[in-house]
Amino acid sequence: MKARDRGFKEATRIEEARRIFYEALQTVSLPSEMIPVQGSLNRILAEDVGADASVPAFEKSAMDGYAVVAEDTFGSSQTNPSLLKLVGESKIGELPMKTLRKGETIAIATGAPVPQGADAVVMVENTKRLDTGDVEMYTAAAPGENISHIGEDVKQGTVVLERGRKLKPPDLGLLVALGRETVSVVRRPKVAILSTGNEVSESGPVTSGRIVDVNRPVLMAMVEECGGVPVDLGIAKDDAEEISKKLKRGLASADLVLVTAGTSVGKGDLVPDVINALGKPGMLVHGIAMRPSLPTGLAVVNGKPIVSLPGLPVSAMIAFSTFVQPLILRMLGTEQDPQPKIRARATKRIVGVPGFRTFIRVLVREKEGKLFVEPLRAPGSGILTTLTRANGMVVVPENVEGYDEGAEVEIQLFRPVERGEGAGRP
Amino acid sequence: MKARDRGFKEATRIEEARRIFYEALQTVSLPSEMIPVQGSLNRILAEDVGADASVPAFEKSAMDGYAVVAEDTFGSSQTNPSLLKLVGESKIGELPMKTLRKGETIAIATGAPVPQGADAVVMVENTKRLDTGDVEMYTAAAPGENISHIGEDVKQGTVVLERGRKLKPPDLGLLVALGRETVSVVRRPKVAILSTGNEVSESGPVTSGRIVDVNRPVLMAMVEECGGVPVDLGIAKDDAEEISKKLKRGLASADLVLVTAGTSVGKGDLVPDVINALGKPGMLVHGIAMRPSLPTGLAVVNGKPIVSLPGLPVSAMIAFSTFVQPLILRMLGTEQDPQPKIRARATKRIVGVPGFRTFIRVLVREKEGKLFVEPLRAPGSGILTTLTRANGMVVVPENVEGYDEGAEVEIQLFRPVERGEGAGRP
Repeated sequence: MKARDRGFKEATRIEEARRIFYEALQTVSLPSEMIPVQGSLNRILAEDVGADASVPAFEKSAMDGYAVVAEDTFGSSQTNPSLLKLVGESKIGELPMKTLRKGETIAIATGAPVPQGADAVVMVENTKRLDTGDVEMYTAAAPGENISHIGEDVKQGTVVLERGRKLKPPDLGLLVALGRETVSVVRRPKVAILSTGNEVSESGPVTSGRIVDVNRPVLMAMVEECGGVPVDLGIAKDDAEEISKKLKRGLASADLVLVTAGTSVGKGDLVPDVINALGKPGMLVHGIAMRPSLPTGLAVVNGKPIVSLPGLPVSAMIAFSTFVQPLILRMLGTEQDPQPKIRARATKRIVGVPGFRTFIRVLVREKEGKLFVEPLRAPGSGILTTLTRANGMVVVPENVEGYDEGAEVEIQLFRPVERGEGAGRP
Repeated sequence: MKARDRGFKEATRIEEARRIFYEALQTVSLPSEMIPVQGSLNRILAEDVGADASVPAFEKSAMDGYAVVAEDTFGSSQTNPSLLKLVGESKIGELPMKTLRKGETIAIATGAPVPQGADAVVMVENTKRLDTGDVEMYTAAAPGENISHIGEDVKQGTVVLERGRKLKPPDLGLLVALGRETVSVVRRPKVAILSTGNEVSESGPVTSGRIVDVNRPVLMAMVEECGGVPVDLGIAKDDAEEISKKLKRGLASADLVLVTAGTSVGKGDLVPDVINALGKPGMLVHGIAMRPSLPTGLAVVNGKPIVSLPGLPVSAMIAFSTFVQPLILRMLGTEQDPQPKIRARATKRIVGVPGFRTFIRVLVREKEGKLFVEPLRAPGSGILTTLTRANGMVVVPENVEGYDEGAEVEIQLFRPVERGEGAGRP
């Protein structure tokens, strides 16, 4: 990293970079689309869902039993039952015709509408039907007992699910309960991904002298995880014309374009120069005060965002999480899900780079009920296995030098804590 | 709930119920299947992935520049460059023919193989190519500088990803880097879902007297979230023959069968009786020491698991998280992802049911930088909106009465914390 970074005289802080980027982007929201409720899991709601009708839409019985005028049962007990006249039955899916009067009862099933006049349901196991057609009630029912009231769950006219919400299983249940078969969600953003570099080739068997492009498969998976749709632009050689042609294709077909590598001291500013030639305002920020991922660039071309990611896979991934994921959430108009965080004791000093936000891959382990965190040695941010071995990330802020051995630090946990003595795979 | 629960004289504790269930199930693991790496995100690895070759597979340059014998550059500086004879070029994808001798250098691109004899690369910007064909080196290179060594990332023969791992973007990158195009993953479990009840009907517009079946859409989404494939068995009336026929279909087509409702005091043990008639050992546990979801049942029929879930949607969801999700993870041979948890101060007393594990839906809010948690009133576990309004769950253990107002409690957070004064939607 050190050498590649040398070209950057100034680095912009992460928040400042985002501010400049979002200001230039102005509107980034996506159109909506109507889809079936059953296929809407994890999609982002594009409408405020209001209740056209109350849920329940009518008074219904919560039990199998007998609808009564509660007063008729007051004082009833096993030894002193009250006797009511059976005058009908309330069935599921049919509104009862009959109005219940004092001294009368109606058989009722769970979910069936409560007849007018009734204000309680006595459970069937607390009753006895006599041959005479009368029913004995062995308990007193309080007014309202065993009745689900109109609007108890949802009141007609209220907004129950707000625009921007990520739809989860209970939300699907509520939509269905409201009688909805389709729902308006935000269209998934299309994210085009281009790798650059003479040194990388398409995936496939590794042969001598061949380096497989890791960035595209990784970034495509990351886009998917954020709720986007990846568009594969392939690999461009370190050639301005080829990069330009492929980026144009990306801008035409996607909502957001990612391009990896093509900017380092050795290669010059190939990608930034190409982006600047594509349209205004071009590169806004190039060089971010973060380690790794310093060579990240943020650009806008004719209203569309382009993020120029570093070529080393770990740097590309960390830059993605820092800039691309928040941008995708912004386009979708939603918030990030809560992230698992834990605290653990550092087994080694964790060192940051002063003035830079430092992202350190770590391994969190439990030993004898205590949590320990070990920074993983990373000889270079090309080393993929530091990320596959890591189960968490420690972020050292710009104004913190690091954390001493033995200090308790906060970790973003993305895999389960390792149990026992295992040192993790090499 | 109270009335429906009355039928259960004894309730089995959650861990004991799981133990009995898993013991009767014996083997629950699923077969594996080979799929393309690019489609393997979030699938569970069914093989230990070893490295057939080291990564990098050869010494390669980390920079554009010149391969040298480091010793030749010792003492070099801007004012006192060393002069080396250019004898060739190392190209990407070609193994260099030439062996470098002292006094010689070879032009080399990032990613190109380092020739025999060379042990460092001098970056191009610290060199000057003379017209004579010689190259001036303005810095001293340490042995190993700017060279990625064989096996630096992965050593041949080591296991880098273990069976049972959920594949995440960096794992896909590592697989690709190893030259893998396909990967062996555990087949997704098929989970068949049957709703029962005369009172519920298929989803669609709500009309008077019609109650939409909420459980199937919700449970299907939950199965999907756990990495399973839902199989819809529809709705069965409260009729033993119909339930039996549909459960048989489920057992024939799926790895796990879920059935909701059909067990309460009013309806008798319709579903449990049907399950017991289907095969041995039948219902193993019926009635769990938890609130809500007491009427949950765990069964095994001819080696296949059946989980009988309560009919009320919230109860069904909590029982699913408690029993079905862990079972699916067990079938997949994997661990649960780390879950976001936070601590907040209770704004009201949070009450458990002694002897039962109590699951309380809560709303967590931030006010002036502090976190507060409020239990949501739940007049019944049929009330879906308590789950859609909630952003978290507090679990009160069996031996705890509850938490006082003002106490700090731990919350499983499943949605972002609410900011500001908003009281949440009704």
